[in-house]
Amino acid sequence: MDPARAVFPHRHLLGIEGLSPIDIEALLDMADEAVDVSRQVEKKKATLRGRTQINLFFEPSTRTQSSFEIAGKRLGADVMNMSVASSSVKKGETLIDTAATLNAMRPDIIIVRHHAAGAVHLLARKVDCSVVNAGDGAHEHPTQALLDALTIRRNRGRIQGLLVAICGDILHSRVARSNIILLQALGARVRVIGPSTLMPAGIERFGVEVFRDMRKGLEGVDIVMMLRLQRERMNGSFVPSVKEYFRYYGLDAEKLSAAKPDALVMHPGPMNRGVEISSEVADGAQSLIREQVEMGVAVRMAVLEALARNLPNG
Amino acid sequence: MDPARAVFPHRHLLGIEGLSPIDIEALLDMADEAVDVSRQVEKKKATLRGRTQINLFFEPSTRTQSSFEIAGKRLGADVMNMSVASSSVKKGETLIDTAATLNAMRPDIIIVRHHAAGAVHLLARKVDCSVVNAGDGAHEHPTQALLDALTIRRNRGRIQGLLVAICGDILHSRVARSNIILLQALGARVRVIGPSTLMPAGIERFGVEVFRDMRKGLEGVDIVMMLRLQRERMNGSFVPSVKEYFRYYGLDAEKLSAAKPDALVMHPGPMNRGVEISSEVADGAQSLIREQVEMGVAVRMAVLEALARNLPNG
Amino acid sequence: MDPARAVFPHRHLLGIEGLSPIDIEALLDMADEAVDVSRQVEKKKATLRGRTQINLFFEPSTRTQSSFEIAGKRLGADVMNMSVASSSVKKGETLIDTAATLNAMRPDIIIVRHHAAGAVHLLARKVDCSVVNAGDGAHEHPTQALLDALTIRRNRGRIQGLLVAICGDILHSRVARSNIILLQALGARVRVIGPSTLMPAGIERFGVEVFRDMRKGLEGVDIVMMLRLQRERMNGSFVPSVKEYFRYYGLDAEKLSAAKPDALVMHPGPMNRGVEISSEVADGAQSLIREQVEMGVAVRMAVLEALARNLPNG
Repeated sequence: MDPARAVFPHRHLLGIEGLSPIDIEALLDMADEAVDVSRQVEKKKATLRGRTQINLFFEPSTRTQSSFEIAGKRLGADVMNMSVASSSVKKGETLIDTAATLNAMRPDIIIVRHHAAGAVHLLARKVDCSVVNAGDGAHEHPTQALLDALTIRRNRGRIQGLLVAICGDILHSRVARSNIILLQALGARVRVIGPSTLMPAGIERFGVEVFRDMRKGLEGVDIVMMLRLQRERMNGSFVPSVKEYFRYYGLDAEKLSAAKPDALVMHPGPMNRGVEISSEVADGAQSLIREQVEMGVAVRMAVLEALARNLPNG
Repeated sequence: MDPARAVFPHRHLLGIEGLSPIDIEALLDMADEAVDVSRQVEKKKATLRGRTQINLFFEPSTRTQSSFEIAGKRLGADVMNMSVASSSVKKGETLIDTAATLNAMRPDIIIVRHHAAGAVHLLARKVDCSVVNAGDGAHEHPTQALLDALTIRRNRGRIQGLLVAICGDILHSRVARSNIILLQALGARVRVIGPSTLMPAGIERFGVEVFRDMRKGLEGVDIVMMLRLQRERMNGSFVPSVKEYFRYYGLDAEKLSAAKPDALVMHPGPMNRGVEISSEVADGAQSLIREQVEMGVAVRMAVLEALARNLPNG
Repeated sequence: MDPARAVFPHRHLLGIEGLSPIDIEALLDMADEAVDVSRQVEKKKATLRGRTQINLFFEPSTRTQSSFEIAGKRLGADVMNMSVASSSVKKGETLIDTAATLNAMRPDIIIVRHHAAGAVHLLARKVDCSVVNAGDGAHEHPTQALLDALTIRRNRGRIQGLLVAICGDILHSRVARSNIILLQALGARVRVIGPSTLMPAGIERFGVEVFRDMRKGLEGVDIVMMLRLQRERMNGSFVPSVKEYFRYYGLDAEKLSAAKPDALVMHPGPMNRGVEISSEVADGAQSLIREQVEMGVAVRMAVLEALARNLPNG
C-alpha cells in the first residue's frame, strides 16, 4: 500500500473539521515539497497528467481560483474554470443538476466555492470524484487554514504551544472557523478579538478566549491573524464605519506592540489597507502576508496530489 | 489513404443536414472509442497535440463549452475560450472581421455558438480551418444530435426502426431540428409533440408526425426526447405559463406510462424541473439524462479527431 | 554566454522607448522564426515548458489577450488569464497588492494591460518576474509596434528609408506613440495626420511631420497606418461625428491614391469600417491587416522567448 494513502485517507477535503492532526501534518509535509517545485525554473510535475480538474466558483475570487489553477497546471492536470456568471445556474439549474452534469464529464477533482454554507458538502455527495471546498459561506475554507499553518510552521518550526490571535470579523469568516479548528488540533491556543456585533454567539464553546479589547487580546501572542472586513457579506447586519473600525480593531504598530516582540502578522487577503490593517504593519518586517500567498499554491498542490492518490487506480 | 478520411470527408461540421448515414455512423464509432478514453485514469490522447482550438461563444453555455473544452484538452489541443463579453464585437467589429482575425492566428478548429441562424456557415466560409457549429439560433446543434444518437445506440443497439417522440418547444429548438434530420437519416420514425404556438408551420414536410396531445403522441414510443422551454428566446411571441405548460406538456410518470414500458427519457439540459419534466422522471430508472452528458464529451472528441485528420497534413 | 541574451539584454518589455535598434532587430529576427512554428501542423515548442505566464488585463481586449495566450501555449507555458472583472481590484485591493500577490505565486512572465499610463512600469518594479506591457493608457503598446515593424519588414525587406504616415486619433493612441519611436529608431521617416483636436500638443518634438490635410499627408508615402477611433477613451473631450470624420480622415480609395502606387495599408484592429477606413481599402490588395494579426502571435512568441532566456537559469 502507498504510505501516502495511509496518512491522508480521505476522498474529499470539505473542511478542517474531521481531519486528524496526522492528516494535517501529512498535507503540510507534502506542501513543503511542493514549495520547491514552484521555486524551480521548470515548475512542473506529471502527477496529475491526464487528470481533469474543474474550478467551479459560484463566488468570484482572484487569489483562490488562481492559486488552484496554477497548482493544477504545475501538476500537469487539465484545468477548466467555470464561473457562476457563465453557468447554467442563471438558467435555473439546481446545484445538484450542475453537480451531476459536471460529474458526467468524468472530472477527477472539482474545486468549489459557494456562497451557502454546506453547499459543497451537498455537491460532494452527488459526484464520484474528489471535491475540495474553496470556501462555502461562513462555514469553512480549509486550504486557507492549511496555508496559514504551513506559513507558521515554516517560520516558527511548529504550531504546538503557540498563542494565536484571530482578529476582526469573526462572525462572517470561514477563514476564522477553519483556522480555529486547525490551530487547536495542532496544539496552539487561540484567542478571537472583535466587536460583539461581529462575534458569533457562543464562540467560547470552540475553546477560544474572546476579547473585545484588541490591546488586551494581543498581549503576549506569537501570531496575529487579521481578517478581511467582509462588508459584501454583511447584508442587513451591522456595518461598521471604516474610520471607527480602524481605530478600535485595525492593526497598527501601536496595537501590535502589545504582542510578543517577534510576533508575526498574517492576513488572508485581499487587504483593506487603512481598514483592518495599516500599510506600515502590512509591509513591515513582521508581516508574512506575501509568503502566505506562495504557501497557498504549495498547499493546493499538496491537496490535489493527496486526493489524486486516493482516486481509483490513482 | 487514411480510411477514416474516407468515411468522414468533411472539413467542417456545420449541421446534420448534408451528412450521410455513413458519415454519422463513422462519428458514432469514433465516439464509442472516445468514451473509453474518458473512463481511464489518464484521460489523455496526443491526437491534437500542437493544434489550436478556439471556442468562440457569442451565447453563454456551460455544458456545451465545457464539453468542447474538456474534449479538446483530453486530445492534447491548446484550447482558447473566447466569450462574447470580452470580444471585440462590443467594439463594433463585424462577425467577418472577428473570423478573419481569429483565422490569422492560425487555429486548426474553431467551435462557434451564435444567436443567429446561419452565422456559423458564414464564418466557415471566411476561414482556412475547420469549424464546428455548437448551436446557431434555431437552426442546428449537430453535436447535440450526435450525442443523443450515441446514447440511444449504446442503450438500444441501433437507431433503425425506433419510434422517437420529441416534445415541447419545437419552434425555437435547434436541438429538435438536428435530431429530426439525424434520427430519420438513421432510420428512426419521429413524432413531434407540442402546443401549436410552439410548433413551426409546415413541420410535416420534414416527414414527422405532429401531435398536440402529449398522451397520444407518446403512445408506443421507444424514446421520449424532452426539450428545454427556451423562454429566453421567446421575444415577443407567446410565453406559456409554467403551471399550465407542465399540466399539458410536462413529462411526468403518468404521461410517460403511455409510451412503451421500457421507453427511455432524454433531455439536452439544463432542465427546468417542474416545467418540462418532473423530478421523478428526470431522476428515474428510464432516464438517460446523465449519460447524455458523458456522451457529449465523447462525441466532441470524435468530431475534433475526425476533422483534425482532414486538415492539411493532418 | 548565450548570444541571444547579449542581443536582448532586458528583463521586461515595457515600451519601445529604451530599446536600441539592435534590440528591436533581434526580436524581429526571432519573430521571423516564430512565424514558421505557427505555420506547422504541430504548432508547439517546449521553450516555456514549466513556465507560468499570467495575462493580467485591466481593460478587455480580444485580440491582444488571445494573441498572447496562443503565443504562450504554443511555447508550452502554463497560461493563466486574469481579467479585471474577476479580480480583487473590485474588492478594493491596490495595484501594488495585486502585483505582490501574483508575484508570490512565482510566475515567470506577467502580461499587463491597464487603463493608466505608467501602471505597468509601477507593477514591474514590484515583481521578480518579467513584465510585458500589453498597452497602458495612451502611453505605449510595444508588441503592436513590433508586429507592425515585422509586417513591414517582411513585405518591404527593410524599415530604413521608408516614409510612413500614421493617421487618425494620435492623441489617444499608444499604438501611434510606440510606432513613432520604433519606426524612427529603425530609420523610417514618420508623418502624423489627424484633426487638431486629436493631435497631442508639441508632437513635433518627436521628430515627426504633422499634417491636418490627409491627402497632403499621404503624398508619396510607402506605408499608411490607420488608427482606431478610440471613442471609448474620449471621456469629456471632443468626440467627432462619424460621418464627418470619415469624410476628412477615413481612408478610402480616393485618399489612398495620393500615396505611392504600391503603398501598403495597416490597421491595428478592431476596425470601425466606414469610420476610419472603407471596406474597399481594408479588404483590398494593398491591405496588410490580416497579416498583422498573424505577425502579432509571432512577435509575442519572440518576446516571451527572449525574456524567458533572461530569467535566472533560463
